[in-house]
Amino acid sequence: MTNNKKTLKIAIAGLGTVGKGVYDILHKDHNIIEKRTNVRIEVVGVSSRTKKDFVNQNIKFYDDVIEMANDPQVDVVVELIGGKTIAKQLIFKAIANGKKVVTANKALIAEDGEEIANFVDKHQGILLYEASVAGANPIIKAFREGFCANDIKEVYGILNGTCNFILTKMRDEEKNYHETLKQAQELGYAEADPSFDVEGIDTAHKIAILSALANSSYPIFEPKNITGISKISADDIAIANELGYKIKLLAIYKNLGDKIQQSVYPALLKNNEKIAQVDGSYNAILTLGSNFEWNMMIGRGAGGLTTGSAVVADIIDIACQRFNKSIFNVDLSKLSHAKTIGLNERYGKYFLKFIINNEQSNQKNLIKEVFGEKIKIKQVTYKKTTQDQTLVALITESIIESDFEKVIAEVSQNLKGINFIRVEETKF
Amino acid sequence: MTNNKKTLKIAIAGLGTVGKGVYDILHKDHNIIEKRTNVRIEVVGVSSRTKKDFVNQNIKFYDDVIEMANDPQVDVVVELIGGKTIAKQLIFKAIANGKKVVTANKALIAEDGEEIANFVDKHQGILLYEASVAGANPIIKAFREGFCANDIKEVYGILNGTCNFILTKMRDEEKNYHETLKQAQELGYAEADPSFDVEGIDTAHKIAILSALANSSYPIFEPKNITGISKISADDIAIANELGYKIKLLAIYKNLGDKIQQSVYPALLKNNEKIAQVDGSYNAILTLGSNFEWNMMIGRGAGGLTTGSAVVADIIDIACQRFNKSIFNVDLSKLSHAKTIGLNERYGKYFLKFIINNEQSNQKNLIKEVFGEKIKIKQVTYKKTTQDQTLVALITESIIESDFEKVIAEVSQNLKGINFIRVEETKF
Repeated sequence: MTNNKKTLKIAIAGLGTVGKGVYDILHKDHNIIEKRTNVRIEVVGVSSRTKKDFVNQNIKFYDDVIEMANDPQVDVVVELIGGKTIAKQLIFKAIANGKKVVTANKALIAEDGEEIANFVDKHQGILLYEASVAGANPIIKAFREGFCANDIKEVYGILNGTCNFILTKMRDEEKNYHETLKQAQELGYAEADPSFDVEGIDTAHKIAILSALANSSYPIFEPKNITGISKISADDIAIANELGYKIKLLAIYKNLGDKIQQSVYPALLKNNEKIAQVDGSYNAILTLGSNFEWNMMIGRGAGGLTTGSAVVADIIDIACQRFNKSIFNVDLSKLSHAKTIGLNERYGKYFLKFIINNEQSNQKNLIKEVFGEKIKIKQVTYKKTTQDQTLVALITESIIESDFEKVIAEVSQNLKGINFIRVEETKF
Repeated sequence: MTNNKKTLKIAIAGLGTVGKGVYDILHKDHNIIEKRTNVRIEVVGVSSRTKKDFVNQNIKFYDDVIEMANDPQVDVVVELIGGKTIAKQLIFKAIANGKKVVTANKALIAEDGEEIANFVDKHQGILLYEASVAGANPIIKAFREGFCANDIKEVYGILNGTCNFILTKMRDEEKNYHETLKQAQELGYAEADPSFDVEGIDTAHKIAILSALANSSYPIFEPKNITGISKISADDIAIANELGYKIKLLAIYKNLGDKIQQSVYPALLKNNEKIAQVDGSYNAILTLGSNFEWNMMIGRGAGGLTTGSAVVADIIDIACQRFNKSIFNVDLSKLSHAKTIGLNERYGKYFLKFIINNEQSNQKNLIKEVFGEKIKIKQVTYKKTTQDQTLVALITESIIESDFEKVIAEVSQNLKGINFIRVEETKF
């Protein structure tokens, strides 16, 4: 018994993978945590759809999860339900009742960030969310504290382990998307309904949070700037490889002055770029700061203990009263509404792929004739696919996307199966 | 004027590269910092060996640096003098006078950590030192806060940009150590007297700090466990490369239960290990946590603005009153004195190199005969160096270093120029 020690009483809502991870860490590691914090962190209540055997019988079970937000003995509500309905009600009720909140709910913060920021500010509440982005990487804390003396200029993120696992496997085993997705599902790396991950939604939630912190603005969630990996073919990956590139699902934030670029799309990255070397289910965040230059963090983005460790870090920060009080790095009165560019305004290189017939492939100057001065070509490769057809793939020089698309529209009548993937270049 | 805003008054001791970086950031970036902190951070005084033109005339210059620790208007003393004499006096005086201290002084913390911890605790002082390790990487904060819910099991660090620059250049340009060092000096990557960097002292200071934080123990600085890179030859690098390895100066911490391994030595790392891919002047820290598994941070370790940015992050934490109050993660009463293993107790693989004459090289079973069952061999390569001689290089299986050295002593009579480099394997 540690009667003379401060106790922080927490209630956990949601006992799925992460909820169990948090519960397990707070029980198996309570000695080390108490030694470091001088605070005893006690789980006084839990709630979940069904009662779980691993939970100590003495811990209160709330049949109605909202009740934990009304329970006077609870200091901190840990929201790990996910989604935007009950989770949001719980968080609002807890904040209104003066409880501090820790959550891993990226969807909620990304999509309803403005409403949440206003509500938390009105009640002078504390809401921490380290576990919402990239598990093992303390990137939220870095954006709020460690990098605080910097203007964050660019962020490149591999933020979804499922997508990175699938793209890595497609490349290593030269398999197509659907086959690989199926394997990933069998191995537990992808959900039965994988669309949230593979269509880039999860990644978009995470970059929305990092952008808000980098830019001191409300989170922005714009479906128009999100492309997933489900259209990436084995051919795309093989040809990109031949040209010296990998394909990664990349989250991008760029401070362009009066606007920002915030987008998610599959992108080609040169093999020798450090972020391109992050394979398998790992996450990575590459950040360009005005003073520190480049920083990259790599670590797992998911898993009960990994994500649980980030949730507990927030609980410990509350126990030790060391945290950034502003939800998105600055006081509400200074939070701005950022303007994003559309992808048509993007300036960069492109990987372009189309099919020509054999007659065309004998024309040495075909590429030059087709694209003329309109698109400058950096690299080109040919691959005979059938008796009659040749696949042409090329990397362009940098061009504004709307100009690029105009040219594509013009030439698409003569070139079959034309499509493109963006090419990104970090200088790290 | 921001009269209704809190002001934090700081004095900077030392205006070399880092001191200038801190001064510059606090002036050029004061808007963004004030926006994020709601505190105006004002440089009210400076001290340096000679007056600097870049310092505003209105800022007080202390001829005697200790005076800033006695100046009632100073809230925070920023110690960037380095070394252990005046810097230490200044820090102790400042702490005794109730001022908070921010420093980048790794030598002082690593070598006099126990005395400092006791003094700071006695005065209930605050001493922050993020800038002492790996500049752009907020690794101290991670060890104190972000990773707080973990037992840190292993740490592998590339912590000295000069050494990493030299080793990378030796490999890329196939040049010898002395030639490369000279180039590094001309380019400003190495000091006129480089011994502090190239002999591993600087790296040892940094791993001493990380070990203390990982292990909740006083820092340990043991010259016997430090080897630098000055004995690494162009041959070592070329042959390691042939076998699929890079050579890096590695700082290592391992929690072995009742003892720790804390050492600095050049080590072979397989090319495909992520930390082996960190080249040039970059630093990297690879950490194995009990819950989050692996995390790696990469970024520059030096440079005025890079290191300055870490110093200012600490100043901002003080301004916002969010920091870990315990100097080495736990209260003084819980800090332990760790026991380190000697390198003779190390268990691992070795890269072994020796010269045989041509008669010997015709003996197919030579290696087997020489080492028999005493050392198991994993890989071997031969390289004819002269008409008469052949260089043999091999990678052993894992063995305790004292056993390995016994065998080496036995066979060294028959094998010329025998020497070894340790091989490290991370699982990342």
